[in-house]
Amino acid sequence: MERIPILRMGKFLLVTIQVDMHDRLAMTLQDDLTSRIVKDRAKGVLIDISSLDVVDSFIGRMIGETAAMARVLDAETVVVGMQPSVAITLVELGLALPGVRTALNVEKGMALLTGADTL
Amino acid sequence: MERIPILRMGKFLLVTIQVDMHDRLAMTLQDDLTSRIVKDRAKGVLIDISSLDVVDSFIGRMIGETAAMARVLDAETVVVGMQPSVAITLVELGLALPGVRTALNVEKGMALLTGADTL
Repeated sequence: MERIPILRMGKFLLVTIQVDMHDRLAMTLQDDLTSRIVKDRAKGVLIDISSLDVVDSFIGRMIGETAAMARVLDAETVVVGMQPSVAITLVELGLALPGVRTALNVEKGMALLTGADTL
Repeated sequence: MERIPILRMGKFLLVTIQVDMHDRLAMTLQDDLTSRIVKDRAKGVLIDISSLDVVDSFIGRMIGETAAMARVLDAETVVVGMQPSVAITLVELGLALPGVRTALNVEKGMALLTGADTL
């Protein structure tokens, strides 16, 4: 179990982060995700972080970097399920995730990606 | 991070199992899932086990039990992403998951639940 699974949902990819990210796992995720974006011609990536109670600057940077990588591959990233404490920490760390869209949950994130206005 | 997140996708719930299940985590998952089925009036549950390389009888039983619980709450369970080695082990353990439907990936599992014949 050294990989975070990437699930395909139509034109989008869904990644649920449940475990503590260490350097190697984060690198593997970025490799896997960029490959899958190209292979599946994904138009968007949903990163669910609802099970993260705490984040550190490493995870914050990793999310920002992953979103930037997706963007240059023409896929939009939406981070979903962020807990209030995580939002506070990220801003305090100076990692306000510029260019990353956020949504309350996967459903709303999916709506954001499809351009549906059912928010 | 002592909970496995349950994501809502329309009328269905999605659970991605990425970590080693121990007793307490499995119990928490079953509690959370049954509560969410009732609260969200879910009609189906997708359990993604694509990141599990190995299963033991505990996980096998847990999946079977969870599916049975969902069924009595009127939600259908589809196990998706099972690796060949896991299928072999489950059958060898005598846990052929009766009554549990399976699909290759989340997308196909979702199609199975919605009754779409786009398989």
